[in-house]
Amino acid sequence: MGSVPGVSLLLLVVSLSLLSSPSVHGGKILVFPVDGSHWVNMKLLIQGLHARGHEITVVRTASSWYVKEDSPHYSSITVTLPEAIDIEQQDFFVTFLFKMLTIQKEGASLITFVKFYWEMLGALSNIHKQASQLTVEMFENKTLMQSIRDTQFDVVLIDPGLPAGVLVAHELKLPTVFNVRWITSGEGHFVVAPSPTSYVPTSGNAISDKMNFGERLKNTFYYVFNTCIDKLIVCPHYDRLVERYFGPDVNFYHLLQGADIWLMRVDFVFEFPRPTMPNIAYIGGFQCQPAKPLPTELEEFVQSSGEHGFILMSLGTLVQGLPVEITSEIAAAFAQLPQKVIWRHAGEPPSNLGNNTLLIKWLPQNDLLGHPKIKAFVAHGGTNGIYESIYNGVPIVGIPLLFDQFENCLRMEARGAAKVLDATKLTRQNFLEVIQEVIHNPSYRNNMKRLSALHRDKPMHPLETGLFWIEFVMRNKGASHLRTESYKMPWYAYYSVDVICLLITVLLTLTVIVVGSIRFLCCRLCRRRKTKQE
Amino acid sequence: MGSVPGVSLLLLVVSLSLLSSPSVHGGKILVFPVDGSHWVNMKLLIQGLHARGHEITVVRTASSWYVKEDSPHYSSITVTLPEAIDIEQQDFFVTFLFKMLTIQKEGASLITFVKFYWEMLGALSNIHKQASQLTVEMFENKTLMQSIRDTQFDVVLIDPGLPAGVLVAHELKLPTVFNVRWITSGEGHFVVAPSPTSYVPTSGNAISDKMNFGERLKNTFYYVFNTCIDKLIVCPHYDRLVERYFGPDVNFYHLLQGADIWLMRVDFVFEFPRPTMPNIAYIGGFQCQPAKPLPTELEEFVQSSGEHGFILMSLGTLVQGLPVEITSEIAAAFAQLPQKVIWRHAGEPPSNLGNNTLLIKWLPQNDLLGHPKIKAFVAHGGTNGIYESIYNGVPIVGIPLLFDQFENCLRMEARGAAKVLDATKLTRQNFLEVIQEVIHNPSYRNNMKRLSALHRDKPMHPLETGLFWIEFVMRNKGASHLRTESYKMPWYAYYSVDVICLLITVLLTLTVIVVGSIRFLCCRLCRRRKTKQE
Repeated sequence: MGSVPGVSLLLLVVSLSLLSSPSVHGGKILVFPVDGSHWVNMKLLIQGLHARGHEITVVRTASSWYVKEDSPHYSSITVTLPEAIDIEQQDFFVTFLFKMLTIQKEGASLITFVKFYWEMLGALSNIHKQASQLTVEMFENKTLMQSIRDTQFDVVLIDPGLPAGVLVAHELKLPTVFNVRWITSGEGHFVVAPSPTSYVPTSGNAISDKMNFGERLKNTFYYVFNTCIDKLIVCPHYDRLVERYFGPDVNFYHLLQGADIWLMRVDFVFEFPRPTMPNIAYIGGFQCQPAKPLPTELEEFVQSSGEHGFILMSLGTLVQGLPVEITSEIAAAFAQLPQKVIWRHAGEPPSNLGNNTLLIKWLPQNDLLGHPKIKAFVAHGGTNGIYESIYNGVPIVGIPLLFDQFENCLRMEARGAAKVLDATKLTRQNFLEVIQEVIHNPSYRNNMKRLSALHRDKPMHPLETGLFWIEFVMRNKGASHLRTESYKMPWYAYYSVDVICLLITVLLTLTVIVVGSIRFLCCRLCRRRKTKQE
Repeated sequence: MGSVPGVSLLLLVVSLSLLSSPSVHGGKILVFPVDGSHWVNMKLLIQGLHARGHEITVVRTASSWYVKEDSPHYSSITVTLPEAIDIEQQDFFVTFLFKMLTIQKEGASLITFVKFYWEMLGALSNIHKQASQLTVEMFENKTLMQSIRDTQFDVVLIDPGLPAGVLVAHELKLPTVFNVRWITSGEGHFVVAPSPTSYVPTSGNAISDKMNFGERLKNTFYYVFNTCIDKLIVCPHYDRLVERYFGPDVNFYHLLQGADIWLMRVDFVFEFPRPTMPNIAYIGGFQCQPAKPLPTELEEFVQSSGEHGFILMSLGTLVQGLPVEITSEIAAAFAQLPQKVIWRHAGEPPSNLGNNTLLIKWLPQNDLLGHPKIKAFVAHGGTNGIYESIYNGVPIVGIPLLFDQFENCLRMEARGAAKVLDATKLTRQNFLEVIQEVIHNPSYRNNMKRLSALHRDKPMHPLETGLFWIEFVMRNKGASHLRTESYKMPWYAYYSVDVICLLITVLLTLTVIVVGSIRFLCCRLCRRRKTKQE
């Protein structure tokens, strides 16, 4: 059958007519980013918004690593915190990682678990203490707040990993868009969408969506545990401020849940399918672009690998170095490979480095992952790297170190596109075996290619999706028609506990009445018979 | 700030590169439509798919009203059912409506409720009995099934309001796409997404998403009631066939839940926000297009209305006529208006028709709704009409008659874009008042204009969205990465009942042990004191 151009044309006309929604050139956007790898993402959205003619103002702290004061894409408001807690220093995470690896090395036990979380929760509390301080500094600076008010922003764009911006948006009565995967203490979905613990793996629990009874029990435990972390460790920092500035009727958690649009840095080639909400737009992999040519030196090194190709290793922006006992094992394994290796490495170079291995402080990761000669990506499992790997169809050797990296790696392993190693148990032998397995067993590459095809098969690039929804909120002054306000209900009403209790009571009462009546009748019958017999 | 063309260009390149997913020209699609207004929707998808170069085969019954055997857009398979139950005859719904109106007239009482549902469930059971018969006729016709197998279809497109196609797709081992709002006995979301009864109005319960305790209780009742209808009245027709053709290991309800993509004929300017799933794509309003010029006679009639404009009345494709005691009241009210009235009317014309009222058997509804002179739309509340009204920003006077029309109208009333009248209590006075209220109080028009702007503000026309996802399933042979398989879990595991029971048992045991120990210690202490005192 041939095609009918008339209908095609009609579709085109309909599309164009729908797409001619009023644009919002010259809008004003206030941005609250999170530093580190999160900023890499936020910067892309900012560049996109700037290219569309919007004015962007970024709120940064004076001690920020990555968020520069001057940029062609945004102006900034710099807030100086009274005591810069040491998370702002780059070696904070190196020290933190060393501690965590030492604890993990002790093996799985209750003591390890407690130690691990003691360290992690201490760090989490410190980070949020500092983030909440940002709000205080802003609210107490009346001149600053007045100038922000005078600017008449259209929307506040927030990375709610550190949710100070949520309070500022509420003070300014402005609609909010979240650029989010992690929020306060867990994955964003857990705050805004129903998350049945029977098939939605809880944050911190590296497990797939197919669970047996024991795993579901553990998953429920993690759910309760995360809720406790939220209520007892993270939220109190902000609750205090909400009480102080907005009074007792405002609830910090409801402010979080009330964001107009959630741009979720998630794609379902990575995340397990799970319930979602109409005001969540998925932008996972929005940072991915077709690879650009490599710098000459790097291209020459890569080409010198011949038919064997090369391996890329990077542990992300957060971790500047691994302990030398691990790096030397990695170096020794690499030295035995016929492939060339490009290793993003910032600390002391291992002494046993092979001739095939090139250490670099910074590398064009996406361009290398998109190079035809790449064979595998040795990664810590940060989502930026994982999405670039998916986009380019490169199988992963995962060495998760901190935070969500364990569950991220597990997701790729569950899809047969990665193999994961425990950093504390890494030896030159097992590392070499894993790399060779991933390179030579074609299933890893094929699975990753399939994920890549699915990921790219979208009606719209995820970055465009993100920009569309930010502008949507600006045009329509929010997106309340997409946002349920059920979160404002008391918990017992939300979970229908009161209704269930009433139904159970009625059922029990009916049972008692029926059973009572039957017994009463039986007794009377028996008595009458006895009377007759007598 | 100026825009940066470099970044724009980059975005464009990224978009184009992503959008260059392999197309599926020349694919083969097997379609199971539902007759009546549902077919109006399905036909649009078929035309779109045909225009993209696909071959479409539609399965129809010999007695179908609307689905013609020959079409330039599709070929057809005609199945003759042994006994065409009277739902295939147009007057089935007229008789049915008359019965329902008589029952409703008796006022709200338990008897009315029972009578109402007795009639409705009888009709529902008959409809599904007939629909399931289609499967038998197909499966028993070995030549037909072999020829379908030989055609090597890529996907089965089903309106699961009558889900016979689901069984055929399972037999053929083909991926499925649903074009759905209603499925078996309720709204599609209830089968595939979590639907907390605390804020999701249940099908059949005309209520908003903000409920008090009593309303939540009633909503829970409707949920249980609908589940019973599903399990006891609808599904048994198909369960029998599943058992007969696929054996005891296959579950009909799981086949329903396992569709790859759900094209939901819903938009959140209409539906209350509620949980959804990654494999649901929203195509509500996909039939809406910019209005075309009216036929000359109609345009002249409309223009003759002058500054007063005109009112459109239509009660949809299903209902061919209202009882004369209602139509004469409507006619009398219309006669008192300065506006002109265009009334889609198929039955006996009322004797008291005003000079300003034009009766027509068929009218270009969308073009009339898009006419600048239109003032209001008197509608029964079918979703096609409602979406066309939203698209064109025309306020509604709702006269719901059957099925979902009550809850559809309520949704528009909750948004201040409609006023609803009970057909059984309609008088010329109250009808006139309601029309005048909707025409003269600007809030109705303004609210509808706002909904219209929100509805049109989309990155992609909903029809394009629908076509994209059908082709996505064809390209990728399904969409399993978007579909949770949690529905395969036993209910007690899905709802974590086993985990909760264990936790309660552990908690109770601990409480008993602790309380027991304390009592034991207290007793020993008391005894020792007594011994000392003695």
